[in-house]
Amino acid sequence: MMLTIQKESTKATIHETSVDRKHHTIVVGGGFGGLYAAKELAKLPIKVTLIDKRNFHLFQPLLYQVATGTLSPADIASPLRAVLANKKNTTVLMAEVADIDPQAQKVILASKEELSYDSLIVATGVSHHYFGNEQWADLAPGLKTVEDAINMRRRILGAFEVAEKEPDPEKRKALLTFVVIGGGPTGVELAGAMADLANHTLKDEFTGIDTTEAKILLLEGFDRILPSYPPELSAAAEKSLTALGVEVKTRTLVTNIENHVVTYRCGDRVEHVEAKTILWAAGVKASAMGKTLADRTGVTLDRVGRVTVEADMAIAGYPNIFVIGDLANYAHQGDKPLPGVAPVAMQQGEFVARLIESRVKGKPAPKFRYRDLGSLAVIGRNKAVVNWGFIRVTGIFAWLIWTFLHVLYLVEFDNQLIVLLQWGYNYFTRKSGARLITGQYLQVMEEMEGIKPS
Amino acid sequence: MMLTIQKESTKATIHETSVDRKHHTIVVGGGFGGLYAAKELAKLPIKVTLIDKRNFHLFQPLLYQVATGTLSPADIASPLRAVLANKKNTTVLMAEVADIDPQAQKVILASKEELSYDSLIVATGVSHHYFGNEQWADLAPGLKTVEDAINMRRRILGAFEVAEKEPDPEKRKALLTFVVIGGGPTGVELAGAMADLANHTLKDEFTGIDTTEAKILLLEGFDRILPSYPPELSAAAEKSLTALGVEVKTRTLVTNIENHVVTYRCGDRVEHVEAKTILWAAGVKASAMGKTLADRTGVTLDRVGRVTVEADMAIAGYPNIFVIGDLANYAHQGDKPLPGVAPVAMQQGEFVARLIESRVKGKPAPKFRYRDLGSLAVIGRNKAVVNWGFIRVTGIFAWLIWTFLHVLYLVEFDNQLIVLLQWGYNYFTRKSGARLITGQYLQVMEEMEGIKPS
Repeated sequence: MMLTIQKESTKATIHETSVDRKHHTIVVGGGFGGLYAAKELAKLPIKVTLIDKRNFHLFQPLLYQVATGTLSPADIASPLRAVLANKKNTTVLMAEVADIDPQAQKVILASKEELSYDSLIVATGVSHHYFGNEQWADLAPGLKTVEDAINMRRRILGAFEVAEKEPDPEKRKALLTFVVIGGGPTGVELAGAMADLANHTLKDEFTGIDTTEAKILLLEGFDRILPSYPPELSAAAEKSLTALGVEVKTRTLVTNIENHVVTYRCGDRVEHVEAKTILWAAGVKASAMGKTLADRTGVTLDRVGRVTVEADMAIAGYPNIFVIGDLANYAHQGDKPLPGVAPVAMQQGEFVARLIESRVKGKPAPKFRYRDLGSLAVIGRNKAVVNWGFIRVTGIFAWLIWTFLHVLYLVEFDNQLIVLLQWGYNYFTRKSGARLITGQYLQVMEEMEGIKPS
Repeated sequence: MMLTIQKESTKATIHETSVDRKHHTIVVGGGFGGLYAAKELAKLPIKVTLIDKRNFHLFQPLLYQVATGTLSPADIASPLRAVLANKKNTTVLMAEVADIDPQAQKVILASKEELSYDSLIVATGVSHHYFGNEQWADLAPGLKTVEDAINMRRRILGAFEVAEKEPDPEKRKALLTFVVIGGGPTGVELAGAMADLANHTLKDEFTGIDTTEAKILLLEGFDRILPSYPPELSAAAEKSLTALGVEVKTRTLVTNIENHVVTYRCGDRVEHVEAKTILWAAGVKASAMGKTLADRTGVTLDRVGRVTVEADMAIAGYPNIFVIGDLANYAHQGDKPLPGVAPVAMQQGEFVARLIESRVKGKPAPKFRYRDLGSLAVIGRNKAVVNWGFIRVTGIFAWLIWTFLHVLYLVEFDNQLIVLLQWGYNYFTRKSGARLITGQYLQVMEEMEGIKPS
């Protein structure tokens, strides 16, 4: 059955006449790649459909601030329909894509409906990778979705709440031990924000525990944290984290997680740490659409399941199927694939939109060239590291750059002013307004209190 | 086992010497009653413990704005620890009270720990009442907690999303039909906000459906909505709702909810309406602590399980156990019990704190006298009704009063300015920033799409 949306709508009739419906581009995924592609495509005289499982775009770089109670999910999320509301040639569908048929040029939804496309852009991103230890997923949750962040927030804040009531010093110590696995930007930002929470925000709010005694451990397999940054910035970040009280352990590989005990190998030594809160920031793997594309087109996947793309983001042999953002392995520039960061996805999305424009309008095809805008990570309340190639900035000045850029890119968001106000308020009062333990809170509390087995 | 928090803390030693620990008051519940009691008690030279299952106080009167995507949960919630952080004689415990022992003057937590009290204030409020049809709870969720609001938001927004993809006009109609059961303030405010959502906020965001065709039905058993208000205000509210497109049915009793069909009796007629979204705002019953108190003290409960209290809020025969707020049936003033609204709870909380002060300091006991500050309900975007006894206000002026008072009482909250900004933004742009479908979204979507049975 073909999906016949817009059939009975009078609005749709207006669309039919006002845009060239000969070319229909379907974009799957409303992250940075998909949204930036859709926004560019919406300017063209073609029909555009954006499909996402969720009804909102998420500003993932700030998700750690939801996990640590500074921002609310809605502060960093924007309804896709609201962002694209004035694009009259664009339809937004909240749906799951179950399969594609590249020969018939169709996308098949989980609800069995089918949609025909002329061009297809797949931008479904990545999820957590536990490197074959999928049983760790519940024990050491990761941070990719709003639900992940709410779950982390519940665990982090819940640990302090349960510690407040715990008379046994050993058990209290385990409750006040937090292990972050993975020293990339997410792990570094999470550890820094947790240190700030324990040392400042929560400091005067408990009577039975001293929250500044909380131990925050950051474990990284490489010989330094932020391994994708220049060594001097890694060193600066480690120094800042240590000053905040975070214990940084590099060359450290986690070998087991069980019964709230993390076992890790640090050189030749095997060590254990008992921690009620263990957070995963160690690796990513491609979303399921990667395998679907491989099955249907024979395209090569890399070792984490990302799709190898041509120099124009298309799949070999399928010039009208593009993969962009974190799901794409783009190795046509420099000596390694482009990193899985927002600027890459945004530039790829805009590039593919321009490529489709050139085809629709019969113009010469553009060439993709990634402009490296640098990379940056924030550490705690007022430190950051910024890598702009020759210019490397650390400390409070880097933090100001980070703040400016993040608010600038939140320009998509209604909430820009509100986020700035929240930050200002949190910064000057050291309070955090979004510290709610919600969702399956009873379950997590009982597990931490030992009433229920984990 | 006695709970020995504070034993090893150096902070606790400071407390021991600086406050008179002879009198320990335990407050159970951090709603309006419990929080206002705790804040007053914190000024006295006694020890205070506030116990709540949640780590935050919730400004429940605005919960419907979370359910309809205007505000975030954190905008109307404040961590209890943050509110009481500078009260050094006050301990906050996130815990569930399982039982009380009035003879031994102990509170027993779910985790088996026991706490001794000299005075006990119970303020655990009420939950939904389905009048013996508890199977309706999942089909027609109510609105008391943050999770309830997120659940409602998911259903309301999800219905529009699924309708956008639905080719069958009959099924689409059921998806765009919303039934609110109960015409008290919550039902009225919810129906008004939903009408605003359908007629304005979502209007230009869909291409396959016309959201203004959504049917919103408000069912009330009495002969008028807002039955606790003067008839002229009920009439004004009904007129405003009708102008917004809400279909108001009074003298209407729901007799069944099954397979997304609501059956109701309206006079002699029995009617049915198919609706994928059914919301419950019809009744409340006492929380479980009511029965616990009855079992342990023999106190009388009313027909919805509320605790009958003496003129000083104490339980007959137990002058040191008080029940306040929605859980209390206080019938010592006027011809019926005081209503279950925030001002009653706040005044009772402050009164009991003053009563305990008089006992600790050996002063004459105060007498409770409820000051009726009036009642008010908002209808849609810029209308309200306000009842101040002789002065009755409707329309936009009432809405301004409502806005002013709600922001005034949010003074407890860090978020006051942010809520004002959100409102201002939403008011002038008719957007709503917090329209996220989160939590068990796949489950609800599949149920609405008919992929999974409900």
